[in-house]
Amino acid sequence: MKNRRIVLVSRPEGWATEANFRLEETVVTPPADGQFLVRNHWLSLDPYMRGRMDATKSYAKYVELGEVMTGGTVGEVVESRHPGFKAGEFVNGALGWQDYAVTDGAGVRKVDGSKAPLPYYLGVLGMPGVTAWVGLLEIAQPQPGETVVVSAASGAVGSVVGQIAKIKGCRAVGIAGGGEKCGYVTGELGFDACVDHRAGRLHEDLQAAAPKGIDVAFENVGGPVLDAELRLMNPFGRITICGLISQYNATEPYGIRNLRSVLTNRLRMQGFIVSDRMELWPRALADLVQWVADGKIKYRETVAHGLESAPKAFLGMLRGENFGKQLVKLT
Amino acid sequence: MKNRRIVLVSRPEGWATEANFRLEETVVTPPADGQFLVRNHWLSLDPYMRGRMDATKSYAKYVELGEVMTGGTVGEVVESRHPGFKAGEFVNGALGWQDYAVTDGAGVRKVDGSKAPLPYYLGVLGMPGVTAWVGLLEIAQPQPGETVVVSAASGAVGSVVGQIAKIKGCRAVGIAGGGEKCGYVTGELGFDACVDHRAGRLHEDLQAAAPKGIDVAFENVGGPVLDAELRLMNPFGRITICGLISQYNATEPYGIRNLRSVLTNRLRMQGFIVSDRMELWPRALADLVQWVADGKIKYRETVAHGLESAPKAFLGMLRGENFGKQLVKLT
Repeated sequence: MKNRRIVLVSRPEGWATEANFRLEETVVTPPADGQFLVRNHWLSLDPYMRGRMDATKSYAKYVELGEVMTGGTVGEVVESRHPGFKAGEFVNGALGWQDYAVTDGAGVRKVDGSKAPLPYYLGVLGMPGVTAWVGLLEIAQPQPGETVVVSAASGAVGSVVGQIAKIKGCRAVGIAGGGEKCGYVTGELGFDACVDHRAGRLHEDLQAAAPKGIDVAFENVGGPVLDAELRLMNPFGRITICGLISQYNATEPYGIRNLRSVLTNRLRMQGFIVSDRMELWPRALADLVQWVADGKIKYRETVAHGLESAPKAFLGMLRGENFGKQLVKLT
Repeated sequence: MKNRRIVLVSRPEGWATEANFRLEETVVTPPADGQFLVRNHWLSLDPYMRGRMDATKSYAKYVELGEVMTGGTVGEVVESRHPGFKAGEFVNGALGWQDYAVTDGAGVRKVDGSKAPLPYYLGVLGMPGVTAWVGLLEIAQPQPGETVVVSAASGAVGSVVGQIAKIKGCRAVGIAGGGEKCGYVTGELGFDACVDHRAGRLHEDLQAAAPKGIDVAFENVGGPVLDAELRLMNPFGRITICGLISQYNATEPYGIRNLRSVLTNRLRMQGFIVSDRMELWPRALADLVQWVADGKIKYRETVAHGLESAPKAFLGMLRGENFGKQLVKLT
C-alpha cells in the first residue's frame, strides 16, 4: 500500500517557502507486534512548526532534512497488532504530514467522534484549546474584573483564551490583523474589544481598548505587539509567552524596548509549552468539552483539502491568511 | 537650628548631572506631638534614585522639583515627642539627602550599633542585602548545583546575591565592569567566576564562565547584559529583574533581541521591589546577620564625606566608579 508524505528538504532563511518541502510517495510498512497503522483524516497546521524547520535548540527536537514534517493528526486505526487499539477506532496523535502512519501508540489517545466533530480534537478540544486553558488559567491566573489582552485573537489558541477570559469574568481584548478578523472577535466570539494591529495606531488603540490598563497579556505574536502591551501593563501583571509568530520568519529579531515595565510594574513574564503540563490535560479537556456543549466557546476552522495542499496552507497561516484553526482534510 | 538638604531642581535628559541638584540651607522645624527629630549620620546612594528623578510612572512616586532627594539613612534621635523613640537611639529610615529630618516614625526602625557597624544597616543588613535575599531565595529559588549569574556583581546587592548563591551550593558567576572589580568578586567574595563586561566578549566569556548554561540570572544591569544572559539560559530558568541600571540614563532604550529564549526555554522573568515583600524582612535580616557574623558574607563600602559630596558620589556610582556599597558620611 502506498503512502504519501511531506518531508523537509531544506531549511528556510527568513520566510519559509514551498521549496522547503517535498511530497514523496513511499510504501506503508505493515505494523509489527505492538504497533498499529493509522489512516490520517485530519492534519493540524500550527505556528510552532515553523520553529521545527530551523536547526536550533528549542523545547523540542527540530525536523531533520529528509524527515516527515511533524504535525498533530486525527485518524482511523486500519490495522492493529497493539492490544490497546482496534481497527475502526479513531485516534489523535502527532503522526505527521502524511496519509498513513505506523505507531506504537506513544502520545496517541482515542477520540470519540460522537461527542464532537473529529477535527475539534485538533483545535478547541486538542492542543490549541488545552494550550489556551493552561496558559491562561494555570500560568496567568486572571481574576474577575481584570483586563486580559490576547494577540492572534482570531486564531486557534487566541480565540479560546478570550472566551475563557469572558467565562471567568474578565474584560477580554483581542489583537488581530485586519478589520474582518476584529469583527469576528468582537462579534461571534464576544470579546469586549479588538485592536487591528495593521491599522498603524497600536499603542493608542490598545490604550482605548484597555482603559484600565492590562493585567494579563497572553502573547502569541511578540515583536511590536509585545512592546505595546508592556507599555500598558498594570502593576503585578502577568505575561504568558505562548508564541512569538512575528519572529519565526525574521532573519533579525525585533528588539523589545519596553522591558523596563517588568521592573517598574513587577511583572511576571513566563514562557510555557503545553506539553510540559500534560497532567492538566484531562481537567482542561473536561472544561472545554462542557463550554463547547453549552455554546460558551465558539470556534471556526479554515480547511485545506488534500495532503499536497499542506505547505501552501501552512505558509498562508504564518502570514495570517487563515481564519480560526487551520486544518488539512486528508481524506 | 540650621538644616542642610539637597533638593532636585531640574529633571535630567539622559545622563543626570550635578546641575540637577542644589544644596539648600533651611531651619529645622521642631518636632510636633508624635514626631521626633533625627540627625542623619549616614546616607545611602542607590541606583533606584535615578528613576525617582524622572517624572514617569513607576513603583514609587517620583521626587517633585524643589523636594529633598529621597534616600535611605541611619541617624540618631536628638529630640523626641514620640512615645516609641527616645533621644540617643539610632534609627534606619528613608529620611532623605539631608543632615536633619523630622519624622512620625513611619517606615523607621531602630538599629543596634553594637551588633554591626551602623552603615551596615544601609547595605548588607539593609535594603540592598534584603533585596538580594528576597530576589534570590524567594523569587528565583535556586537549587544546589545550579548556575546563578548576577550582574553588577561587586555592588551592594550583587555581591550579596553571589555569596548567598555559594552558601546555597550553587555555582556563582558575576558580571562586573573592569578587571579590578572582577578580581574582587572572585577573590575576596569567593564567586566561581566573573566576566568583565567591558572586555568586549560578553557572550563568549559568559559561556566560558557558565559552561552548563544559566539557571538563574539576577539582573541589575539590563541591556546587552540581559541579552547575553537570555542566550545562555537553561530550560525552566528564572530571571529576577531587580534593576536595569544601564537603562536609567538612556534617552533611547536598548532593544532586547533574545526574548525568544523566554518561550523556547520556558523561562520565568519576574520584576520585584523589596518594599512589596516587607513581611520577609525579619527572616532575611536574621540570615544576613548570622552570615556576616560567621564571615560567610563579606562586604565593602565606598564612603564619600559630607552631604555636599552626595551628588558627585551618586553620579559616580551610576557610572560604576564605586566599589561595593556607596555611602555618604554626614557627620
